[in-house]
This record gives sequence, structure tokens and C-alpha cells, in this order.
Amino acid sequence: MGKDKGTTFNLKTPKGTKDWSGSDALLRDRIFTTISNVFKRHGGTALDTPVFELREILAGKYGEDSKLIYDLKDQGGEICSLRYDLTVPFARWLAMNSHITSIKRYHIAKVYRRDQPAINKGRMREFYQCDFDIAGTFDAMVPDAEILRIVSEVFEELGWSGRYTIKLNHRKILDGVFAVCGVPEDKLRPISSAVDKLDKMPWADVRKEMVDDKGLDAEVADRIEKYVMNKGSRELLDSLLKDEALNANASAKAGLEEMALMMDYLEAFGVLDKISFDMSLARGLDYYTGVIYEVVTEGSAGVQADAPEAQKAVKAKKGKSKQPSEEDDRSNDPTLGVGSVAAGGRYDNLVSMFQPRAQIPCVGISFGVDRIFSITKARIEREQKADALRSSEVDAYVMAFGGKGFGGMLKERMDICQKLWSAGIKAEFSYKLKPKLPQQFKAAEQGAIPFGIILGEEELAAGKCRIKEMGLPDGHPEKEGVEVELSSLVPELQTRLAKKQQGAVSSLAQQLQGTGV
Amino acid sequence: MGKDKGTTFNLKTPKGTKDWSGSDALLRDRIFTTISNVFKRHGGTALDTPVFELREILAGKYGEDSKLIYDLKDQGGEICSLRYDLTVPFARWLAMNSHITSIKRYHIAKVYRRDQPAINKGRMREFYQCDFDIAGTFDAMVPDAEILRIVSEVFEELGWSGRYTIKLNHRKILDGVFAVCGVPEDKLRPISSAVDKLDKMPWADVRKEMVDDKGLDAEVADRIEKYVMNKGSRELLDSLLKDEALNANASAKAGLEEMALMMDYLEAFGVLDKISFDMSLARGLDYYTGVIYEVVTEGSAGVQADAPEAQKAVKAKKGKSKQPSEEDDRSNDPTLGVGSVAAGGRYDNLVSMFQPRAQIPCVGISFGVDRIFSITKARIEREQKADALRSSEVDAYVMAFGGKGFGGMLKERMDICQKLWSAGIKAEFSYKLKPKLPQQFKAAEQGAIPFGIILGEEELAAGKCRIKEMGLPDGHPEKEGVEVELSSLVPELQTRLAKKQQGAVSSLAQQLQGTGV
Repeated sequence: MGKDKGTTFNLKTPKGTKDWSGSDALLRDRIFTTISNVFKRHGGTALDTPVFELREILAGKYGEDSKLIYDLKDQGGEICSLRYDLTVPFARWLAMNSHITSIKRYHIAKVYRRDQPAINKGRMREFYQCDFDIAGTFDAMVPDAEILRIVSEVFEELGWSGRYTIKLNHRKILDGVFAVCGVPEDKLRPISSAVDKLDKMPWADVRKEMVDDKGLDAEVADRIEKYVMNKGSRELLDSLLKDEALNANASAKAGLEEMALMMDYLEAFGVLDKISFDMSLARGLDYYTGVIYEVVTEGSAGVQADAPEAQKAVKAKKGKSKQPSEEDDRSNDPTLGVGSVAAGGRYDNLVSMFQPRAQIPCVGISFGVDRIFSITKARIEREQKADALRSSEVDAYVMAFGGKGFGGMLKERMDICQKLWSAGIKAEFSYKLKPKLPQQFKAAEQGAIPFGIILGEEELAAGKCRIKEMGLPDGHPEKEGVEVELSSLVPELQTRLAKKQQGAVSSLAQQLQGTGV
Repeated sequence: MGKDKGTTFNLKTPKGTKDWSGSDALLRDRIFTTISNVFKRHGGTALDTPVFELREILAGKYGEDSKLIYDLKDQGGEICSLRYDLTVPFARWLAMNSHITSIKRYHIAKVYRRDQPAINKGRMREFYQCDFDIAGTFDAMVPDAEILRIVSEVFEELGWSGRYTIKLNHRKILDGVFAVCGVPEDKLRPISSAVDKLDKMPWADVRKEMVDDKGLDAEVADRIEKYVMNKGSRELLDSLLKDEALNANASAKAGLEEMALMMDYLEAFGVLDKISFDMSLARGLDYYTGVIYEVVTEGSAGVQADAPEAQKAVKAKKGKSKQPSEEDDRSNDPTLGVGSVAAGGRYDNLVSMFQPRAQIPCVGISFGVDRIFSITKARIEREQKADALRSSEVDAYVMAFGGKGFGGMLKERMDICQKLWSAGIKAEFSYKLKPKLPQQFKAAEQGAIPFGIILGEEELAAGKCRIKEMGLPDGHPEKEGVEVELSSLVPELQTRLAKKQQGAVSSLAQQLQGTGV
């Protein structure tokens, strides 16, 4: 160590990474808890895989993006890379554990991409993914519908009610549409990716790209327009089910029949009104084989707000100040579309890439936690819910006051804290032997701690102390606090905490709901 | 992708790493929750740092163990390494954020060491650390005592009451003892590390190592024996405070005075009876400057069970079967001593290694979660508390039965699930259109799901369904379930769930407490 003494270090985190602390860390933690509670409610079991995998496991899974994979140095032994997403490790795990034929698994963890970072836009090299997937062979569309129910529970509980739309499409319908319109086999991918841009470009531009750049016949493009510009719900599906050309195509027919089932199930799950059947949704990744979906929110580039609820919400917001997510013109997570906050679909063939005999169909969803965090934080700041931006959640600050010859009452404060902790109450006290009262009040205020427990030598000798609710207005009858017996301090404080909690923030949903912002 | 099709992969995780799934993942998650709830109760705020750091940040911090650091490949740009522990990133963060002069931070995350793995012994290359540290300049021993209060709350809430001892010593006392006994300056480190082995070697062997291997005068060794073989509590401290030789040494005197304060505070915090003042505890890491401590449990190599409570517990267990931790003859985590489950101490100079002007004293604790997990799991298995080893925590399985022409009632099952989920009840159902009743019962039994909700076509038409508690013995009046109105299904199920919870497992502590094993 000697040589390094006094060296000044390059004090920073690596490019594209950051430390999370204070109120940001706490808010993100609450988002994780909200999401994982929903996952558990649906019988999800946790899977935790190593942060690095054998390099050959990742090879050939990400196409061009493979260049973004972080490799570990060869220090002798195996050649490894940091994981790029949570889906490939899940498929590797399923292939390794062939006795598992069905599972609902969730995984909340960091993934790594050597992309050009744009921290202001939320594009990082280390970021969290939040995945839920259902693997196994079941009757058509049943788990798929449950995934969308999960999506809606998550956003309802995050307090986004009426502010999001789940865009839904089906790969087989899309394939059928392209075939019926006459797109040549070799142009399927580029035309599909052009269509996917309809959430941020007008049709005229997309058509230009198809015809001028990608050499598609203008007539074919016009036939495509007739289909992909459609958005809706059951009525759109009904009209497509009557489309003779589509029904003559096996792929489109299969897709439409599955979509009809899906809508039935979504209705039974009470989420049909959150859905927009959006024929332009194509999704980037190759491996999807069935339904695909993406969640957009007001202010995000892709929002169409076609779902009845969201439509109302967006109309009501017109003319409001710029939303933070408008700046996020590219997600940090290429698996998410522009402006989306969650995305996923059915992928039936990924596991068999690892184990040809293991044919385990899967369907899943990935939540973009970093973007959900940014949008939630911006809302809280706009609404000045300072309470939500605390860096810890302490209930009570135990303090002492005294005049001349004041001993500081350290052990007495410790004793009271001990009693509070034993009752499960979150409590702090000053680490000074003789702290001044204003300093103690300042510490409680800075931490937005709701209650002060005040010890005085005379009161203590009489077996009493004072509970003071912080931040009461002048003139409030309890402004100076209320005296309680030491023996009833714990229940008394618990009652007051419960009361305060009821009136205030207890979940993100309650906090962000119904504020009209 | 084409070329890879059909390739068979080396389906494994990298050496020294593993996947966590099912009941193991759930149990570990409950341990994390228990620990982080205690951290939050003491005002801890979360800090999350990147999994890799600039390599120069880690350089010169770990002595010989630096060879165990995982490096990232140089792919252009910065040179980085995976973190080796959570303490150095914390110190780097403090040095970077010089406006923060005091903080209580916790961090639960994975660290990486290219050590020779021994998976059966729990020594992994990727493993979790669980750290709580208090940084800042305060009055002596106040935060130090709170750290030990935290330690005791964690183990009490993990259900280890009476089964653990916190070994406590002070670097300054140890330095003073060695000086008073006449250990030459250049032999301080090797003699200190020999003394540290007294938890697993008799004095005669340690003396031999000192004299024969390390060239210490035999008389000096004998003088050391007089001190380091002592263990106890206040009475040991009192006798040392009367030791004239020790009190003439400035370091020893300062250490003893701090230890006296510490004991006062530990008493105020109600944890003095968990402590063993152990003069042989030396701890490996160089950077400790004050109190040092280590938690041992019955069956772990280092247990002395000197604390009154633990002593009783260990006596009662004599002759019992081998404890799982006896096999763990070396921790996967070199910062933990042999057989210990948590360890830490005061380190006042680490932050200034990064920023010479930033002198922020720190004191902290690191919990060895992997070992805590192994011991807890082994106890649950011995006690056959199968309930605790479920892989998810589903409350109810919604099923349907019917005879000839049975439609499967899929949408009806979906509708009931939807109502349960909306009420926050964890529920599952079969993804089959027409599942057979025995299959549905089997699924509920395999998941150890406590309640079945049974739908029949006739009952449903009458606005009713059946709640069946699983696993009731034959002849129980409710063996076949009870019929309830659909409108009261949710409150009825909630009441039964609450009742079941009361009688059974709700925390690890309740689960493992008072079983007498």
C-alpha cells in the first residue's frame, strides 16, 4: 500500500455507470418492491443467475449488438462475458434443468451493454431489467393474457392509472399481412422494421423509406397502409376476421384466431380497456413468434393513447408542460421501443437454441425500470411530494434538552431508542454526548422525520417524555408536543404513526393517484 | 444465428458461480429482507455502486489478495475490474462526495473473487455481501455500540436467539498488550495473526508458532499468554483497568477507556449479554483502527459461547449431531474469520486513501449471507418445516370441476383470479382449457398452496363457490371445503389466510424460535 499513499485517484465511476444513493435509491427500491409484489402475487418464483456467463452462451444471440457485450479478461480458465439481458440466461437455465417443464420466473437485476452512453437521456452501460416470464406448454393465449394482466397491475400500483396504453399485435398477423400485400420474402425484415417506425414518423415518410430506400413496389406499400394504419379493439379484430384475403392466409388466420381468444381472456381479466390492438407494432427482436406488446405512456414518443381510459387522460393533459420522457428519444434498452416503459412477447424457440430437444415455449415481459424511475421522479418533483424523496424512512428522532449542567442524557436516549427498535419502530438519535436542541431538531427536519421524542431530566424523573409531531403550524394545540408516560410511549407513538400513514403516502399508487397533474 | 443452429452448448455456469432458484432463492430473499429491515430501522440509506470500478480504485487495497480480482477485458476505453468487496466502493463514494460528512449506508450486493472455489463448503467466486456502515465524526463509541445493537437485532430476527456470540476486542488494547509484553515492532503483524488462531488451536500450538516459526522470545510469549487467553465481560475489563503495566501504555489505556464506554452503551442498548470481550480476537485486515468484532455461532469453529445466553444454549446442545457449519472450515469471504457469520470494526483512515483531505472515520459490519443461508436452511431441513422451503408463496389455487360435457370454466376461473389479485391475494389457476380435477389438486399440493377455490357449474350458477383448506385430515368437518357466496369469497378467504398465518410461519424468527433443536 505504501507506494500509493498520497496518490490522488481518478475519483469517478466507469463511463456509463453511476452510483445510486439517497432518495433516488429509496424511490427505485419502492418501484422494485411494487413490481416484485405483483410478480409474487401471480406465483412468480425468483431466479438469480451469475452476472457473467460463458461467452459461448451469449454468442449468436444478439446479432449486430453482440459488439456491445462486455468481455472479462482472460486470466486463465474459462472465457466469460457480462450478461447482456436476462432472457438468454433464463433460456440457458431452462435448457440446463430439463426436468423443469413449466415455470413462472421473475428476475430483477443489472445487465451490461458497451453502448454509447447518454446519461441525461437515461441510456447507461449498466442498468436494471425487471423480467417476468412464463415457460411451458399450455393452452393458447392463457399465460399470454396473464402477462398483460400483470402489466396492468404493475402500472396501476405504480399510480399510472389512465396514463398508459398496452399496444398489442401478433407476429403471425403481421407476417400474414405482408404476405397478402405481396412483400417479397427477402424484404420482410426491412419492411417490418420500417412499419415499426410508425409511432414516430408519419405514413408518408415510412412509405418513402419502403419504396425509395428499400425498393418496395409502390402498390405493395399502399396495400400495407390499408392494414397497418389501423388501431383499435374488438371492432378492428372483427373487421379483420371478415377480410377474405387475410383469412385465406394460414399465418394471418392463425394469428387472428389467437387474437380473438386473447381479447376474450383480457376481458375476463378486466384489462381489455387498457389495450390498443395496433397493427403497426412490429418489435425489433427476431425471436418473437406470437403476440407482441409494448407499453407507452403519455409524453413518451410512442403514445397514441388509443385505450379509452388513456385517451381521456391524454386529452385532459394537452398543453401541459413538457414531460421528462419526451427527452428520452432513445431507450437505453434496445429491447424497448422508442418511448416505451415495458415490452415483451411470445418466444417459443429460444430454449431449443441451447438444447435442440428442449422445446419450451415462453412468453414474457420486461419493465424498463430506469425510465419508469425517471418519469415517476419527475412527477413527484412536479407535485412537490417532498415526503417521497426522503433518503431513509425513519419514524422518530429521540432527542434531549436541558439547561445548565445538562448531562446530555445519552444513555437515556439509547434506552428509549432500544425500546422503539424492539417494537419495530425506525428511530435515530444524535451520536453526540451533549447535543444542542436546535441541532437535534435540524437533524430531524433534514431527514423529514415525522416525530420527535423529547426527553427532559425532570420529566424523565417523573417517568414521562414528550412526543412532538414535527412541522405542525404555529398555534396548533400540540405544537409543543404532548406529554406521555414512558410506559405508554411505544403504543402511543404507534397509534400516531398509523394515523399519519393513513392520511399520507403509503404506496406509490396512493401517492401519485388522483393528483390531477 | 444461422451457423449456430443445432450447436450443442457447454451448458453450465462459470466456475465458482451458481444459479439460485426455487426455495433456495426464496429463503435467501427472506434473509435479505430481514437484514435490510433492521438496517432501515436504524436509519440506513441504500447505496448502490456499479459492479465494476476503475482498476486504479481497487489497486493497493487488498495486499496479496489483489491477484484474486477479476479484470474486464480491454475493449478500448477505461480499464475496469469487478468489485472485490463493498467497503472500497463505499470509501470511493465518500471521497467523491465530499459534501457528505456523515451517513449510515447499507449495501446488499454481489462481490467477485477469483479464488479456488469449494462449492460444498460455500466458497464461491460470486457471492453476496450485506454491509452496514456509519461514517462521520461523532463522540467515541456511540455509533460503534449501535452497530452491535444492529448485529443482535439481525440474529434475533433470524431466529438465532441464544445461539450466537459477538466476540469483541479493540486494536489499541491489542497493540498495547504486545508493546507491554515486549513484542518487537517488526513482529507485530505475524504475532497478531498467530494470536488470531486461538479460536481453532490450543495455546501450546500458537506459542510454538510464535517461538519456533516467528522467532519470538519464549518469555515474551508467556507474558502474552497471560493476556490473550482471557475472555469475559465487565469483570475482565475491570481487572485490566487495574493492570498497572497496561495503564502505563498510552495505546492500551486509550483502548481500555473506549472499551469501558462501549460496555456502558451496550448495556443501555440491551445487548451486553450477547458480548464476549475476547482478547485473542485480532481480525485479518490491516485497515481496522479501533473496536473489532466477529459473530460466531454454535457449531462454527470459532464458537466459545462465552456470552451467558449462548453458553447455556451450547451446553444444552452438547452431543447433538454435527452442525452444518462445522464443514465450513474456511469462509468464502476472507473478511470473515473462520466459522464466523458476521464481522467488522472501526476503520478511520480508508477514505483518506482516496482523498487525503477527506478524513471520514467509519465503523461497520458485514454479514456473511451465504453462511447464514446454509445454517438456516440446514436447520429448517432438520426441523422439517417444509412450509419454509416453498418456491413461491401462493395463497390460493382456483380450480374447476365438472362431469360430462364439462366446459372447463376457464373464463370463470380467470374472473375469480382477477378478483383475488385485485384484493392483493396471491393466486394461480391451470392454464388448460379443461383441466382434470386431480391435476389441479396436484398442482396446488406441489406448490404447498394452503387454499383451493373450487368452482362447480351448478354452484356458480347459484352465485356460490367452495373454499377448501388443503391438507386437512380425514374426518375433519371442513375436509370437503365450505360453500361461500361469491360476493363474500374475498373477505372470507382473507380471514382464513390471516388465521392460518397467525398459527404458522410469519417470520424466520417465529419459524426457527423455540424449537429446541
